[in-house]
Amino acid sequence: MRKTKYDVMPEIKRRFANRAIREQTVPWETLEALAEAASLAPSCFNEQPWRFLIATDERKEKLLATLTPQNQEWAGKAPALVLTAAKKTFTQGGKNNRWYMSDAGCAAGFFILEAERRGLVAHPMAGFDRAAAQEAFQLDADLEIVHVMAVGYPGDPSLLSERNQARNHPNTRKPLEDILL
Amino acid sequence: MRKTKYDVMPEIKRRFANRAIREQTVPWETLEALAEAASLAPSCFNEQPWRFLIATDERKEKLLATLTPQNQEWAGKAPALVLTAAKKTFTQGGKNNRWYMSDAGCAAGFFILEAERRGLVAHPMAGFDRAAAQEAFQLDADLEIVHVMAVGYPGDPSLLSERNQARNHPNTRKPLEDILL
Repeated sequence: MRKTKYDVMPEIKRRFANRAIREQTVPWETLEALAEAASLAPSCFNEQPWRFLIATDERKEKLLATLTPQNQEWAGKAPALVLTAAKKTFTQGGKNNRWYMSDAGCAAGFFILEAERRGLVAHPMAGFDRAAAQEAFQLDADLEIVHVMAVGYPGDPSLLSERNQARNHPNTRKPLEDILL
Repeated sequence: MRKTKYDVMPEIKRRFANRAIREQTVPWETLEALAEAASLAPSCFNEQPWRFLIATDERKEKLLATLTPQNQEWAGKAPALVLTAAKKTFTQGGKNNRWYMSDAGCAAGFFILEAERRGLVAHPMAGFDRAAAQEAFQLDADLEIVHVMAVGYPGDPSLLSERNQARNHPNTRKPLEDILL
């Protein structure tokens, strides 16, 4: 558990980039519940630009193949991979939505904390082949992929590679004064 | 309180774009605690691209002046306005960070839910003069403003204008099937 200066929501305090995920199925309803939690995030003009591709079984294998080998190694154990995408334009009027990425990121934050509350890990990854993932699922050109999350129950860190074991702990953070303007 | 299909974190369920904010000071420590909660969000290469400008008193008046008149009307009562910004480039190497906006949005999500947990409102707004805010606080060109949040304790909705009273309730959401790919 992280040390914080202030009292902070336990889900936020506990969360870290956990790579140790058990090979145990997560019920579809639970995965949907995470997406529902995400869907309640705020968004500019209530556009709700976020989209989630919950990949299990065959779709998981397809999405897994687009990850870097380093990510495949540990994320392959996760029973689900979830691709987050953001719709670039407003549905009404079709203009570019300047907040598509920040709003989708906020929704992903809600997803991740709801996962934590339910004793699950949702670990976002930037290491994947964007074009390959877009192609594999024939994603609309108006959707931009944000990240791919590995989702599952926490597992035994001793099953990770030595390198991943060594870094399977909360990362440090900048001191508060460095992020306050 | 929203109706949801699944059991969802109470902070997520309760949150909505509340415009009714009391004119009551929020202790500085509490505002800092929200930024600390935000700082624990995940980010690509642990860059932590988020920055928060917590504006109270004189700085609040300066930031308030950059909001649209419609937002000034209700957000002016909030004891604090918080500008969220995102650093466009990686500190190591200086390359563009493709995740700067989504990571800052995720951190804002953590900020908003920690506020909710503490019985506070943190309401992000897109209606402000971006150039004027950048200028007023001499923000570095490498920082892009995400939004401005009105932060304070919930107040009496009867003090809002008729128009704002009428819309001071949770917005609807797309059905889950519309956001699942």
